[in-house]
Amino acid sequence: MPELTDIVEGERDQLTDRIVAMILDAVEGRDTVALEEILAPLHPADIADLLEQIDDRDRKDLIRLWPHGIDGDVLSELDEALRDDVIAALPAEALAVAVRDLESDDVVDLVEDMDSDQQEAVLDALEAPDRVAVETALSYPEESAGRLMQVEVVRAPVHWTVGETIDYLRSHDDLPEQFYHVVLVDPRMKPEGYVTLGRLLGSPRATKMADLTEDSFRTFRVDQDEGDVAYAFNQYHLISAPVVDEDDRLVGVITIDDAMAVLDEEHEEDILRLAGVGEGSLADRVIGTTKRRFPWLAVNLVTSILASLVIALFEDVIAGLVALAVLMPIVASMGGNAGTQSLTVAVRAIATKDLTGANVWRVIRREVLVGLVNGLIFAVVMGLIGWAWFSEPMLGVVIAIAMVINLVVAGLAGTVIPVALEKLGIDPALASGAFVTTVTDVVGFFAFLGLAAVMLL
Amino acid sequence: MPELTDIVEGERDQLTDRIVAMILDAVEGRDTVALEEILAPLHPADIADLLEQIDDRDRKDLIRLWPHGIDGDVLSELDEALRDDVIAALPAEALAVAVRDLESDDVVDLVEDMDSDQQEAVLDALEAPDRVAVETALSYPEESAGRLMQVEVVRAPVHWTVGETIDYLRSHDDLPEQFYHVVLVDPRMKPEGYVTLGRLLGSPRATKMADLTEDSFRTFRVDQDEGDVAYAFNQYHLISAPVVDEDDRLVGVITIDDAMAVLDEEHEEDILRLAGVGEGSLADRVIGTTKRRFPWLAVNLVTSILASLVIALFEDVIAGLVALAVLMPIVASMGGNAGTQSLTVAVRAIATKDLTGANVWRVIRREVLVGLVNGLIFAVVMGLIGWAWFSEPMLGVVIAIAMVINLVVAGLAGTVIPVALEKLGIDPALASGAFVTTVTDVVGFFAFLGLAAVMLL
Repeated sequence: MPELTDIVEGERDQLTDRIVAMILDAVEGRDTVALEEILAPLHPADIADLLEQIDDRDRKDLIRLWPHGIDGDVLSELDEALRDDVIAALPAEALAVAVRDLESDDVVDLVEDMDSDQQEAVLDALEAPDRVAVETALSYPEESAGRLMQVEVVRAPVHWTVGETIDYLRSHDDLPEQFYHVVLVDPRMKPEGYVTLGRLLGSPRATKMADLTEDSFRTFRVDQDEGDVAYAFNQYHLISAPVVDEDDRLVGVITIDDAMAVLDEEHEEDILRLAGVGEGSLADRVIGTTKRRFPWLAVNLVTSILASLVIALFEDVIAGLVALAVLMPIVASMGGNAGTQSLTVAVRAIATKDLTGANVWRVIRREVLVGLVNGLIFAVVMGLIGWAWFSEPMLGVVIAIAMVINLVVAGLAGTVIPVALEKLGIDPALASGAFVTTVTDVVGFFAFLGLAAVMLL
Repeated sequence: MPELTDIVEGERDQLTDRIVAMILDAVEGRDTVALEEILAPLHPADIADLLEQIDDRDRKDLIRLWPHGIDGDVLSELDEALRDDVIAALPAEALAVAVRDLESDDVVDLVEDMDSDQQEAVLDALEAPDRVAVETALSYPEESAGRLMQVEVVRAPVHWTVGETIDYLRSHDDLPEQFYHVVLVDPRMKPEGYVTLGRLLGSPRATKMADLTEDSFRTFRVDQDEGDVAYAFNQYHLISAPVVDEDDRLVGVITIDDAMAVLDEEHEEDILRLAGVGEGSLADRVIGTTKRRFPWLAVNLVTSILASLVIALFEDVIAGLVALAVLMPIVASMGGNAGTQSLTVAVRAIATKDLTGANVWRVIRREVLVGLVNGLIFAVVMGLIGWAWFSEPMLGVVIAIAMVINLVVAGLAGTVIPVALEKLGIDPALASGAFVTTVTDVVGFFAFLGLAAVMLL
């Protein structure tokens, strides 16, 4: 077993399997000294990951042995599935200390999914102005810019000079922990532009702040969707951006690290939805996970029964030539795969706003042509295999034609279905898969067995 | 048709379908005045998107009509599939002007995939020190921190005070466009910490810089993988981080916007690989797209032929009861779906370092149990349907048992296969899908038809 003193330089600040083993060992041995020594250098995000990875019993023991280590930063990094458990296990005073050091956006993130009792307990721990800030943020819609922003903004009147701004900043000792711009506002508090701290530092004192503003300046409305905010940060390389209310007045600022976290979540959501998993995390229990996956499997059951109904139409044909039953899943499977390829590209392109009215027909045409070319190649390959396998040339012809039809349909359905769902206001990542696979299964079985009925019997 | 004067306030800086239509109209009419008026307010990233969305002919015409608008920022935002075309269409002097204003990391990003002639042309346009910086960056491995960093770093000796640092910054007029920290270095140029500009501005002149350093300080090695860098930025909420060479000397700095772009690319790659699409973009042509998708479809052909071989083992059984051919795709399809759910969760958890040695057995157990519970539910549902459909209770029993077996196997294979591939150094996003579907197809058909052979005939 590795000893504390074995920890090599540079390993101290990373959550390796070795470090996890040593922590679990210290928890087992109730060794609070060793725990402190191993855990203290870890980043809050890593401590949160640790709590997610160990099992229920070890987690409870760890929190009991090291309660003051679970600070606000650890709580706000923690997976939502576990947060309630951890907060419930924390002594009340430890919780109060934990939240008091957080910026307002982190407190909002922490409490927004709590039930009202627990939310009350956390809010009670805050000082009055912080509490008001958090409650205001909670009044904005979920997943909006208002929830994402922090209310701590560094601003200056638009008519100020560099010297005035620097003097003002130097006389203030409660500046936010992280800020990158000074936002310029008019007398009505409308943001007019922003100046980077680097530019501020590099300019003569007499320079007008208004002459130093950045081109990248953009504002968001409090009620704007956080996904749009994240997209804009990524598209326009923003570092921070002011948030305004319906009267165009400055109410907060969003910084790139929060936008990056949203972008990360949205990607995660897209990947999981495309796979029919829905939300959720590795920390969820069996019952929760089963419930979340069930609806997608139920939809799949319906679509595969639909495909079976198509097969049932041709029972006599299959009874006459069992080889058809052997080969038919190949056509459906190739169509399903090609369809998934097209739909994934389309869903991503819609999410990144690369697929628009300007190029949708060109993309559809391309996908159909790609389906045609790949369909022709695999038609020849599979036609020859079918012929050779069952010594029946016409069987090869039938599977070849069915392959071309299904791959062309896959390209078409894989693009048109997500685009249509998007137009109807349905998340294409969520629903495209089931529709596209239904189409390729039904068309695959129908084309193959139907052609067989006509050409072989 | 919308007129120029119709453009509403607030629409000027966004690439709406209307704006695209107006631009195409101006291109058609060779109206350079209108083009300038519509294009000038657009962000370079939007101009790049525009070039990606319009067709070849319009793109060539647009570049010819508005060459000076295609500046370095537009080029570096442009999809790689198109960059070569656009650069080839640009007059030589326009290209030279375009690249001269870029930071070194953007020039690297621009030229790294060019062939050597074109690369030479761009490098020749740079001034000598910039050229050296770019060539040094190009000497680092692809997708490394060295390629991602910019060499323009703001640094200060570790023994300086706030006053000395501010005076130094104010006396320099070639500070980088964007910087967020002053990096403190020892006499050997080893970075010792960094100070945010906000903290610098808010502290008395006599304060030692060394007393203001941030806890979040981390350095990266030039040869470190850019994916690890992006992970660390996201995990530890970094804004910028120094890059050091093998002797621990400061050689550059990576900023969060570049890390965010890498994170975005890696996500994109994962989604596309999971769907068997590989790299590539919406701007690719039919032949390129067909070629990229072909290998994945070829792998799918092989796996579906494997499944067909399993079916072929039971030809006599199917000939005896054609209902089996009707029902068998349902078992395989449900297994394939459940397997995809498990593998997607596993692949994502591996990518985000949430699935580790500490919890791998717990996750495998959970996935198997989820498969068991959902398997039992769908066994009852499908058993009753199978019985009712073909009025044969034993057929219902057979499909029910096969369903449970295949969903348990799906949960197991969906987790074990990606974990094993990761251990073997193979990208699990790339290869898991084919393996898992093969397993669920083969097990699904074998369990269902095998049980039917034993229990029904």
